[in-house]
Amino acid sequence: MSSLRVVSAGLDLMAESIEAQGVTTTRVDWSPPAGGDPDALVPLAAAYADPAIDAAIADAVVRLQAAQPHLISAGRAGDLIPGLEGRMILHAGPPIEWERRCVPQRLAAAGACVLEGWAEDLDAGLALLESGDVEMAPAHSLGSAGAMAGIISPSAAAWHVRDEVSGIDAWTPFNDGPGDAFWLGVGGPEAVERQRRMAEVVAPAFAAALTSHGPLDIFGLLAQGLAMGDDCHMRHQATTMLLMRELLPAMAEETPEKVAETARMVGTNGHFALTITIAAARTALESIRGIGPSSVVTFISRNGVDAAVQIAGLPDEWFLAPAPLVGDPLYRPGYSDDDAAGDIGDSALVECCGLGAAASAASPAVAAFLGGGLADAVAGTHEMDAICIAESERFGLPVLDGRGTPLGVDARAVVDLGYGPTVNTGILHARDGGQIGAGIARVPVAPFQQALVRLLESRPAA
Amino acid sequence: MSSLRVVSAGLDLMAESIEAQGVTTTRVDWSPPAGGDPDALVPLAAAYADPAIDAAIADAVVRLQAAQPHLISAGRAGDLIPGLEGRMILHAGPPIEWERRCVPQRLAAAGACVLEGWAEDLDAGLALLESGDVEMAPAHSLGSAGAMAGIISPSAAAWHVRDEVSGIDAWTPFNDGPGDAFWLGVGGPEAVERQRRMAEVVAPAFAAALTSHGPLDIFGLLAQGLAMGDDCHMRHQATTMLLMRELLPAMAEETPEKVAETARMVGTNGHFALTITIAAARTALESIRGIGPSSVVTFISRNGVDAAVQIAGLPDEWFLAPAPLVGDPLYRPGYSDDDAAGDIGDSALVECCGLGAAASAASPAVAAFLGGGLADAVAGTHEMDAICIAESERFGLPVLDGRGTPLGVDARAVVDLGYGPTVNTGILHARDGGQIGAGIARVPVAPFQQALVRLLESRPAA
Repeated sequence: MSSLRVVSAGLDLMAESIEAQGVTTTRVDWSPPAGGDPDALVPLAAAYADPAIDAAIADAVVRLQAAQPHLISAGRAGDLIPGLEGRMILHAGPPIEWERRCVPQRLAAAGACVLEGWAEDLDAGLALLESGDVEMAPAHSLGSAGAMAGIISPSAAAWHVRDEVSGIDAWTPFNDGPGDAFWLGVGGPEAVERQRRMAEVVAPAFAAALTSHGPLDIFGLLAQGLAMGDDCHMRHQATTMLLMRELLPAMAEETPEKVAETARMVGTNGHFALTITIAAARTALESIRGIGPSSVVTFISRNGVDAAVQIAGLPDEWFLAPAPLVGDPLYRPGYSDDDAAGDIGDSALVECCGLGAAASAASPAVAAFLGGGLADAVAGTHEMDAICIAESERFGLPVLDGRGTPLGVDARAVVDLGYGPTVNTGILHARDGGQIGAGIARVPVAPFQQALVRLLESRPAA
Repeated sequence: MSSLRVVSAGLDLMAESIEAQGVTTTRVDWSPPAGGDPDALVPLAAAYADPAIDAAIADAVVRLQAAQPHLISAGRAGDLIPGLEGRMILHAGPPIEWERRCVPQRLAAAGACVLEGWAEDLDAGLALLESGDVEMAPAHSLGSAGAMAGIISPSAAAWHVRDEVSGIDAWTPFNDGPGDAFWLGVGGPEAVERQRRMAEVVAPAFAAALTSHGPLDIFGLLAQGLAMGDDCHMRHQATTMLLMRELLPAMAEETPEKVAETARMVGTNGHFALTITIAAARTALESIRGIGPSSVVTFISRNGVDAAVQIAGLPDEWFLAPAPLVGDPLYRPGYSDDDAAGDIGDSALVECCGLGAAASAASPAVAAFLGGGLADAVAGTHEMDAICIAESERFGLPVLDGRGTPLGVDARAVVDLGYGPTVNTGILHARDGGQIGAGIARVPVAPFQQALVRLLESRPAA
């Protein structure tokens, strides 16, 4: 008689009872889909069974792989972004009323009021915004996206990005660097002055360079950046240098008098290229929006209070959840979770596009936030693998011998496995603004589940 | 009775005979030191037994770890390098007579004659050199070092590097980039014109920037470069961009009219920083030259015909062997070993200093020459580990969670293990000059063995 061997999947109680009878038992770590929650299991099974969803996902992958976002030009946001006019300020994340808006976004928006000349100082700016005399709208509503607070006012320096395949445009502010900066929720005089120099010197320098150079292939730049230690979210050191290397000859020829100040500002800001990456990801994700009933995530965004998700099959619906605190935090000395604002920024678009957390394995520097070693960084990529549908054909991971980064978050997989995408991001001070740390945000599962239910409701009955 | 278990180290015949008797045998891969060669074993044993050698090695390690080479200035080689005057040309590698000199070095030297105005064209330059009316001397003899052909004439653009700890100086030519370039053994009109533009525009631009910026910590730059995929020999993409990022603001302020051409030349040359690294390594290695009877290698250099080695304990003796062909070659289409010149350049100094082959694991791009994958790149570093005496405290390897690169080649270990340092290097055409590929050169063991024998002869009788 051959001896009995039992493989026990997930059910520890059964394994224990069998082991008590002297039978060799191999325990396999397993948990039921969607944590066994019937409210999730039923739509999940239906979504997996719908061939139209599979087909739409396959189509989405082809388009995401094919996207070719290019950096087109730079200039004054009000001149570039259609619809940004009058007393209007754009912000990261979903719409939110002033009373609920987080302090970092309030402060940066108040700084923008000073920049525009609508208010004398920060306090006057806050009062003006509270009065409702300045319209605040999601950057998303005008085809734009920004990092962290994501504030864009008409006089700010901005980039224009276009996907050469779909023709879709996106706009994003210039990243204003470390310390006193709008994107970090600081609106004081130094932050305003920096915005002014970027609009008067840096943006015109890049505009002249781009006019002479022609459109610049952003994903090509990012692929090189990944090979040089960037995850292209938390770290953009290499990508920023590659951008400068590419455009410097034309810049020096066209506007030699602006090079020194531009070089100083860009050279001291390792995040300079971040917003360009966000806008590039935005154009790629917009190209799959509304293309069939796909469950591919096209939008993840947070305003410090609410987190919002959109999927390609429901192009006009927002699915919301409270913005989480950023996990695995590394705080600057003296700070803790008590000081942290909720997760903020449109930057999680890059995670939907094979970058950031998906590319953690590219960046040993990001490993510090994931446990410390290269194996932890690789694990970060594998965590995204499980909820993504493809491997990027553009973005290779050197430490994994060039295999592509996980591309395209599938809301089905998020519900199935019970965790949302991770986002390599910064942490702002909840009461004072300013950056106090960085870490890994985990987008809540609830909005993905809501989206899946709605997607099925929107399908014709079989 | 416990069963007999045998560990058999290296001796397969014995293992087979024991296994035939039914005894469990574990075979360990082992070979005797120095391949069992008694001519090598005797001095090797004596060198390992000499406490004065160990003490000198320990001292050497401390000094190598402490070195702080800085980039001081740039300018005309004849103005910077003491002793480079009149009709004189420096070259890579040990001294060699014209008749035996390899073609790439002849062609580059002839180009230098044109650059200097000593000859009308390449043929006239070759004739002039053959006549002996131009002195050719190793760069090493004037405290200098160059990559590949390593040609330096008085009008060429050059760097000045100084180790701030020891005060030791070194000089090196500007790297003249891909294609028609002296360092690649090309001396035609385009190569000469490029040298001229470097001397007239690029070197003065960097000179002005360095004067304004102050000395630049080279090892600090290289440590960042390693974290961004450079091995700092075969690849200097990141280091070159970091150098430019550091100096650009001052350059644009001091000489705005020179920035565009400089940026174009630097931006299209991923090897631009290579010679700076070589000169920096040279200053560090010079700081241990003659410090006690150490067997630490201070100099590995090749002129395409001979390979030369020096050790710290015998500061004025050269140990020679034929320059090998570069191994593991990746040739441009249409080329093979039949076309390859012998290994050439002073660049192997970087391998003695914890860079290049020692840092292969830092550079997935170098992996292509080592088998293709990251594991091969890591194996390249481990191969150097075995013949090195320390781990660098400055140069970390991201994929090995930050551990230091192998530092300080010990001639004893080379003889013991029977292989010389590997060198990540280029391959020149033996008859026409110009680069035809790249690969990994393996320095022959013989000169290390000769050095060890002489070191022991130089020791007082015990």
